Amino acid sequence: MPLPIELADVEHAAARLAGVAHRTPVVTSRTLDERAGANLYLKADGLQRIGAFKFRGAYNTVAQLGEAERAGGVVASSSGNHAQALALAAALCGTRATIFMPSDAPASKRAATEGYGATVVEYDRYRDDRDVLTRAHAREHGMTEVHPYDEPRVMAGAGTVGLELVQDVPDLDVVAVPLGGGGLLSGCAVAVKGLSPATRVVGVEPEASPDYVQSLAAGERVQVEIAPSICDGQLLPTPGERPWQVISSLVDEVVTVSDDEVRDAMRLLFERCKVIAEPSGASARAAVLAGRVSGNRIGVVLSGANVSAERFAEILGCT
Amino acid sequence: MPLPIELADVEHAAARLAGVAHRTPVVTSRTLDERAGANLYLKADGLQRIGAFKFRGAYNTVAQLGEAERAGGVVASSSGNHAQALALAAALCGTRATIFMPSDAPASKRAATEGYGATVVEYDRYRDDRDVLTRAHAREHGMTEVHPYDEPRVMAGAGTVGLELVQDVPDLDVVAVPLGGGGLLSGCAVAVKGLSPATRVVGVEPEASPDYVQSLAAGERVQVEIAPSICDGQLLPTPGERPWQVISSLVDEVVTVSDDEVRDAMRLLFERCKVIAEPSGASARAAVLAGRVSGNRIGVVLSGANVSAERFAEILGCT
Repeated sequence: MPLPIELADVEHAAARLAGVAHRTPVVTSRTLDERAGANLYLKADGLQRIGAFKFRGAYNTVAQLGEAERAGGVVASSSGNHAQALALAAALCGTRATIFMPSDAPASKRAATEGYGATVVEYDRYRDDRDVLTRAHAREHGMTEVHPYDEPRVMAGAGTVGLELVQDVPDLDVVAVPLGGGGLLSGCAVAVKGLSPATRVVGVEPEASPDYVQSLAAGERVQVEIAPSICDGQLLPTPGERPWQVISSLVDEVVTVSDDEVRDAMRLLFERCKVIAEPSGASARAAVLAGRVSGNRIGVVLSGANVSAERFAEILGCT
Repeated sequence: MPLPIELADVEHAAARLAGVAHRTPVVTSRTLDERAGANLYLKADGLQRIGAFKFRGAYNTVAQLGEAERAGGVVASSSGNHAQALALAAALCGTRATIFMPSDAPASKRAATEGYGATVVEYDRYRDDRDVLTRAHAREHGMTEVHPYDEPRVMAGAGTVGLELVQDVPDLDVVAVPLGGGGLLSGCAVAVKGLSPATRVVGVEPEASPDYVQSLAAGERVQVEIAPSICDGQLLPTPGERPWQVISSLVDEVVTVSDDEVRDAMRLLFERCKVIAEPSGASARAAVLAGRVSGNRIGVVLSGANVSAERFAEILGCT
């Protein structure tokens, strides 16, 4: 069975994103490398527009909509980075976005999304099924739903992170990628395996929601219970359907990290590498720090940096 | 009278630093730019080795020492970024460094400097004259003193920050640069005026030590009283002699910023631009934020990012 996306889709996404998205820098620390005995290449995609890789997939999707779809607008449910990403992508492509957000979402996230011109509609996360709401809204208002990860154009756009990394850093032994729904990892796996087949690809998910680890062990998508975690961008009960097809075919391994490991990585990134990462954004670095990713030349995707100064201080125990 | 350095010195420094120092990225935020009605280009030199621009000047100096000088080693007094910069430069060039540090310097700074292989000697900042100590030590042990800013090779190395910025971003109206002793600003002024004569150059110092503002008003170097400030990298009572010659000739204007303005800039940089800056490192961004630097295309030097998570949280009032 063909996979939902292939290398050409990621390459076309890169062409669409050229001049619109940032080509984010690869940050290195030779001093840390010498002490650790390995070379790390940190793809700092928190420096992407809206502060996370999500802009890539959202823009790659909205930019491909036809005239009629653009006239109708786009809709999604998200309290996180996909909300801002879709809001900005819609504004840049001359269409409008409606975002369903839980009524208890932080005011700052709502304000940021509205700041990009989107309409925010609240729902009750305990009473309402957000997927049902979103789909009904799309049908009723003639809008196009843009799923945050189970959508080939979103996956291909996210894959440009991996594409840029292997273009900028040849001969990587392994690339470690944060894993939630699977949009980022599936796109990166297609790009990395396409351009550099010998490079291993490792996904990293929080131990609070090990849905990919358990699904891979079972050989099929399973549901897990979600425990509390600071890694709010990766807490999903089951793999996305299309990402799962790619990840179960192409990814070499999925490992988990604890919240404390993520905290250590956030502090190391801040104090030694001078890079900001939100918890989910630091998860792949945490797996390397904890010794769960082996290789001499290790690519590490830092997927996002959307964390307020207060929340950052709180997570690191500075308060 | 010829100036202590000229464009060729900065260009030669850039050649020496190629492959050794990082060519640090220029960070932009189109959303912030659209709201402010100006385009800002942030030269993120906190991503430089040792976390600050100081590595450039230290390495450019040590790399030019003759065999006899290298055999003797280098010495400086610094409790800040110059200490780590000189320690790393010495290690890379196969020589040794001795750093005089005040006995009340933070343990983390001492540990970082020793981590690069330097010998740290403590002095009493209330009893001892550090310049006298350093000079005596150099003479007694046959070592070469590397002044943190009043040294042409240090100034030329620091100037590569400005060189890279105008190479990467053409047609800047103005470049804003943090100003303490004057090594960074003097080097950047030579580079910017040499490559892009129409670009204005503005220095930014804390209002707690307005030695350059007052010296420029007086037409000669004057001494000022230093007030307490979070901008610990810029608190000097009088301009450096050689930097003064350059700055009084080439720099268009020097402005001051308050600690609160610097705090606002640090928070904006963290939350919106995803860039870490220590207080002195954020001072030029603070001047732009406060409306003290005008232009449509504004280059801003972020000079350093050496701040612990705890200190960062404390400065921003998150504790």
